[in-house]
Amino acid sequence: MRTDDSLLISAEKETGRLEAFSDGVFAIAITLLVLEIKVPHLEGESPVGLLTLLIKQWPSYLAFFLSFITILVMWVNHHILFTYIKRVDKRFLFLNGLLLLFVTFVPFPTALLAEYIQHPEAKVAAVVYSGTYLCIALAFNLLWRYASNGYRLLGKNVDRALVESINRQYLLGPPAYLFAFFLAFINVAASVGFSMLLALYFVFTGSLWRGNSD
Amino acid sequence: MRTDDSLLISAEKETGRLEAFSDGVFAIAITLLVLEIKVPHLEGESPVGLLTLLIKQWPSYLAFFLSFITILVMWVNHHILFTYIKRVDKRFLFLNGLLLLFVTFVPFPTALLAEYIQHPEAKVAAVVYSGTYLCIALAFNLLWRYASNGYRLLGKNVDRALVESINRQYLLGPPAYLFAFFLAFINVAASVGFSMLLALYFVFTGSLWRGNSD
Amino acid sequence: MRTDDSLLISAEKETGRLEAFSDGVFAIAITLLVLEIKVPHLEGESPVGLLTLLIKQWPSYLAFFLSFITILVMWVNHHILFTYIKRVDKRFLFLNGLLLLFVTFVPFPTALLAEYIQHPEAKVAAVVYSGTYLCIALAFNLLWRYASNGYRLLGKNVDRALVESINRQYLLGPPAYLFAFFLAFINVAASVGFSMLLALYFVFTGSLWRGNSD
Amino acid sequence: MRTDDSLLISAEKETGRLEAFSDGVFAIAITLLVLEIKVPHLEGESPVGLLTLLIKQWPSYLAFFLSFITILVMWVNHHILFTYIKRVDKRFLFLNGLLLLFVTFVPFPTALLAEYIQHPEAKVAAVVYSGTYLCIALAFNLLWRYASNGYRLLGKNVDRALVESINRQYLLGPPAYLFAFFLAFINVAASVGFSMLLALYFVFTGSLWRGNSD
Repeated sequence: MRTDDSLLISAEKETGRLEAFSDGVFAIAITLLVLEIKVPHLEGESPVGLLTLLIKQWPSYLAFFLSFITILVMWVNHHILFTYIKRVDKRFLFLNGLLLLFVTFVPFPTALLAEYIQHPEAKVAAVVYSGTYLCIALAFNLLWRYASNGYRLLGKNVDRALVESINRQYLLGPPAYLFAFFLAFINVAASVGFSMLLALYFVFTGSLWRGNSD
Repeated sequence: MRTDDSLLISAEKETGRLEAFSDGVFAIAITLLVLEIKVPHLEGESPVGLLTLLIKQWPSYLAFFLSFITILVMWVNHHILFTYIKRVDKRFLFLNGLLLLFVTFVPFPTALLAEYIQHPEAKVAAVVYSGTYLCIALAFNLLWRYASNGYRLLGKNVDRALVESINRQYLLGPPAYLFAFFLAFINVAASVGFSMLLALYFVFTGSLWRGNSD
Repeated sequence: MRTDDSLLISAEKETGRLEAFSDGVFAIAITLLVLEIKVPHLEGESPVGLLTLLIKQWPSYLAFFLSFITILVMWVNHHILFTYIKRVDKRFLFLNGLLLLFVTFVPFPTALLAEYIQHPEAKVAAVVYSGTYLCIALAFNLLWRYASNGYRLLGKNVDRALVESINRQYLLGPPAYLFAFFLAFINVAASVGFSMLLALYFVFTGSLWRGNSD
Repeated sequence: MRTDDSLLISAEKETGRLEAFSDGVFAIAITLLVLEIKVPHLEGESPVGLLTLLIKQWPSYLAFFLSFITILVMWVNHHILFTYIKRVDKRFLFLNGLLLLFVTFVPFPTALLAEYIQHPEAKVAAVVYSGTYLCIALAFNLLWRYASNGYRLLGKNVDRALVESINRQYLLGPPAYLFAFFLAFINVAASVGFSMLLALYFVFTGSLWRGNSD
């Protein structure tokens, strides 16, 4: 009743719509982060100036910046995966949904970290923060393993060496974020600094990008 | 003045734009849910730690999670319907708008449920919450009946057996959410638990997906 | 240097991107409306129940509903216009931006109306509310006149009778919303009711839709 | 293993997805601006009317309007650049991310300026505000230089004279916003007025648009 052609076309359309929905979620999550930065209120005849107040809320800017580049790195990775994925099935839709669940959650631990980074209980906030990223790294791996296992959802012309190279690189994410997670129990600054390094590492040297692998 | 070809192309473009707009609304509604989770504030020398405060607001996480997977299931269903719908007309645009009206409303009953689930008046919140989902299930049925009735907006090559199978499955939604709605008057936990089961049932076993039906 | 073909393709791509951006703005504005509905807070041992508090904030639901369907009607109209528009130029981009300026503004007068509809100063809120819609109706006319004047941005195969029919219908919008605007100075309920009727009229009988015009 | 054709198609798809993601971020940032305008609260038997309160918060409307048109101008420019860009690489993705970082940040300095424009410390707010725009202008230049340098990411059929004309025009942005930035240290009104003039200049006379250059 349906020819192979129509199946291919509809597969491409469905993949496209999943990308569009995911892009929407990434774009909104990354833009909502700014709502966490509050305008400071100067009281009556405060001896402290506005500039001082603005500088004092540096944790908000730091958390905004860290969450922004981490979500951006995730979006770039998501974007790259979909250049290899040619079909989606229902399980994949929901695994992608699991990833988006953690991505939409990011503004909460970001605000939590910004509020408590200088507080005696900063560790709790840092554990929740790095724990969220650990969950995202795990969901990303699940998504990729499911799609690439036996070329389940990949295009036939995707290079086997490329798939294995992505496999190897993806194995790095969860242990790295697990390390940041455990670091949070010991030293907040070290954990946040390590997460920042991880994101910058992916920005500047990550070789997942096809342009570099060909 | 217009050939059949141009009509088909414009029909596809219009359907595409409706999907894009709906995707945007789904993506924003699902991402706004996180704004309902508030960063807890530790007062001066509180004997209660941050971890305790974070755990105490478990209703917020539960409501976030339940609303997230329910909206995700709806989005997947919407996505699947549009693989069969090939044309839109003005009435369909507004029926789809009715569905989106209830979807954009979801963050409010979610926040309401999170705030009152441990309160003596939790039943009111649970009734509003499950009532919203009942409205969504009804709007979904209306949308599908309108599109599928006499193949009004379906592609000609859509299998009749498939349409009837969707019809049967869609009949389950309203009574199931009606049951959750009535349960809310009797027992809040049972109603919320049943809604959770419903969403997870659709995630794990729902057979609406073409991949399983072919 | 550029062939007519590449110009046509790029024109279509540019129009598509403008539609996507506008759809995003409409979708976000329509979804942000729900943030205006606040969860009511029960104080200590209040003699008033949650249900009573929820019912008492009916102006929020009314304003949410009215703004939702009005933005939806605008989106449908915008959607329909773009089935005739085949090119965009820079002026059109900014006229469309003017329309979006007023559309993104809608959540503010909506929240204002919800807060003050039962207050002695409700008229001020209703004037701002209906004034915003008047501006939208004017921006819509400006956009359509600019695009349709001398077929500046329309496809060549768009029926002249259709263009004139849209012209006539568009002439109705500004006076109707001007009437709602002046009504707001006299009677708030009448103005809000009239705006509601206008939106429902466009939903149920508006004949702008091609399906009805062919 | 991959033909030139498939590379071209995938390049177009990737460029398209980057545009869609960027459009989403622009659309959300521009729509979130309205959340900064707060509904004024009348206290008990205040001698001041609602109208007076609404008028008194003119800095909010001014900041909303200025930020709206500035983001709109940026979006139009982004839109235009992408009519010349035919490929993306990973560095470009992150340079675009840098631009989006500053764009999503805009609602914060907007709210800051609205709150402090009549305060003795208005200069601090104006410096942050114009500094944000300076960063955006710099990021835009970086993005364009990277893409256009040696036609790295441009289509082959893009006119060399056009590229040089854009180069020249882009050189104007950073010094102009640098001027607004320094002006903010001296006179807030002058700096804000100059930013407004800049945005309106781009709206009314900017000749970046291809329609005018051909």
